[in-house]
Amino acid sequence: MEKIKIGIVGYGNLGRGVELSLAQNPDMELVAVFSRRDPSSLTLITEGVQAAHMADILTYKGKIDVMILCGGSATDLPLQSPQIAAHFNLIDSFDTHAKIPEHFDHVNKAATVGSTISIISAGWDPGLFSLNRLYAEAVLPKGETFTFWGPGLSQGHSDAIRRIKGVANAVQYTVPIEEAVNQARAGQGASLTTRDKHLRECYVVAEPDADQAAIAETIKTMPDYFADYDTTVTFISADELQEKHSAMPHGGFVIRSGETGLDGNKHTIEYSLTEDSNPEFTSAVLVCYARAAYRLNQKGESGARTVFDIAPALLSIKTNEQLRAEML
Amino acid sequence: MEKIKIGIVGYGNLGRGVELSLAQNPDMELVAVFSRRDPSSLTLITEGVQAAHMADILTYKGKIDVMILCGGSATDLPLQSPQIAAHFNLIDSFDTHAKIPEHFDHVNKAATVGSTISIISAGWDPGLFSLNRLYAEAVLPKGETFTFWGPGLSQGHSDAIRRIKGVANAVQYTVPIEEAVNQARAGQGASLTTRDKHLRECYVVAEPDADQAAIAETIKTMPDYFADYDTTVTFISADELQEKHSAMPHGGFVIRSGETGLDGNKHTIEYSLTEDSNPEFTSAVLVCYARAAYRLNQKGESGARTVFDIAPALLSIKTNEQLRAEML
Repeated sequence: MEKIKIGIVGYGNLGRGVELSLAQNPDMELVAVFSRRDPSSLTLITEGVQAAHMADILTYKGKIDVMILCGGSATDLPLQSPQIAAHFNLIDSFDTHAKIPEHFDHVNKAATVGSTISIISAGWDPGLFSLNRLYAEAVLPKGETFTFWGPGLSQGHSDAIRRIKGVANAVQYTVPIEEAVNQARAGQGASLTTRDKHLRECYVVAEPDADQAAIAETIKTMPDYFADYDTTVTFISADELQEKHSAMPHGGFVIRSGETGLDGNKHTIEYSLTEDSNPEFTSAVLVCYARAAYRLNQKGESGARTVFDIAPALLSIKTNEQLRAEML
Repeated sequence: MEKIKIGIVGYGNLGRGVELSLAQNPDMELVAVFSRRDPSSLTLITEGVQAAHMADILTYKGKIDVMILCGGSATDLPLQSPQIAAHFNLIDSFDTHAKIPEHFDHVNKAATVGSTISIISAGWDPGLFSLNRLYAEAVLPKGETFTFWGPGLSQGHSDAIRRIKGVANAVQYTVPIEEAVNQARAGQGASLTTRDKHLRECYVVAEPDADQAAIAETIKTMPDYFADYDTTVTFISADELQEKHSAMPHGGFVIRSGETGLDGNKHTIEYSLTEDSNPEFTSAVLVCYARAAYRLNQKGESGARTVFDIAPALLSIKTNEQLRAEML
């Protein structure tokens, strides 16, 4: 069987996670890693894979089946996804919830013109958590859904802080507030606000000449990411960041409680994740959606998709016959 | 907007659950309930719905968009699903795992000839649990999945007992064995057998002249349903059954623990359900898959499908635009 040829665009934590995940999927092979950095400066894990400059990506047209975009949502993906969708099938993990409809439209136009498939906003949230919100609401139309994240380090939020002027490095932990979690579990979460549910704790390494007060203010007032939360900002040294904040655990859960029938029968649907490494887990999701993108494009489909549009069977290396016999 | 016209085939606990669930879905309307009983003997909950005899089902061709089959897997669905698929879109909850491939083939042939869509084996297991097994394995190819059921009353297994000669009524509780659950949670469940994981407890009302020993033996040796488990059979009176065993709670969970990367990072994906009423919860799943069957058939598709083949967005009453804006 011919393998699905994959390209990775952006070689940070997520890109390396995708590279490692591909090694667990025998129907795929990594062809090239694209970066804005000098290709000779990249140390890839997999033998025989080409490191290439972003500027040369079009020379790989026809040689790569699916590009997995591993840049950030703040500035990388809004530009890269439409540009690359014009020429390649792609997966991205665009996670700025408020801007997803706009991003979808831009990518959809480019992918339709390019006769490619783009699956945007894959990962675990948006992604697996989104799926569970949808399934749970479809099954229990009368009810309430709550999503809690963490405790864990958020890539998207850390990335947003790192892009602030004067920030050398940063990590952000999302921490669910236990009282709120208990209310939600008990089906009594109706009045919970965004601020009631989670804290955001930021550990920031400032550049030597940076205005720390201004950085803290920029973080705490950043729309979509921090403005709606109680946020703490702690400045630490690069050494302390390296020592205490290098692991990237995450997790969380989606809970829906609902009611059916005449007797008020109650039901709870709960989905939870615990992850030692958020980037490696997110990467694993991107990789199985790459399989789906390839298959849809092989069927002649084009345009943008989200996880909501992808039939689950398309994600699995198994045949439909195997799935029915072994997993249904 | 024109509503999706639904027919219910079989009016037991599941059929009544579907009727109640339809009332929570404003894009659907119940047209008729079909039964092998005298239609005048059925007391329906919803006003304006026709009670009809199974023998008259073909007179509803063109008047019903999707039939939701609410019979049992042991003897009803293997016959009914292919017969009805020849004329109507349908949903069933066929749950004899070992016979799903055969059932799929029979229904697929009939539905293809009839230009209808059949979604078989919907419910929560097979159904939502199957989906979670598939998603979790696709995301974490290196790992192990465990499914636990209960504690709860299994409709399929109770139904199988009720069909035994000499049985007036029966309920069956599936009980997960705690030691096994703890092993699975700890990622140490590799050696667990079917028998290690669950007990099956049966409470049976025998007919006056029945051979109780023969009934117990028939239950304990029934393939697929009981033979692979430690099963207890307790004979009780009809009054005791009514008093102590009328509620139909259920639940369970699907756990996958897996590993990614070079450092052996561990991840756990867990999905759990708690249900006050198994038939009402199962019904709620059938109803949202009826929406998907209708939409697929409107697009001109035909043949058999399982939950693996259904894009999640097809289940929701919301538009794709709403889903992307509100739930992704």
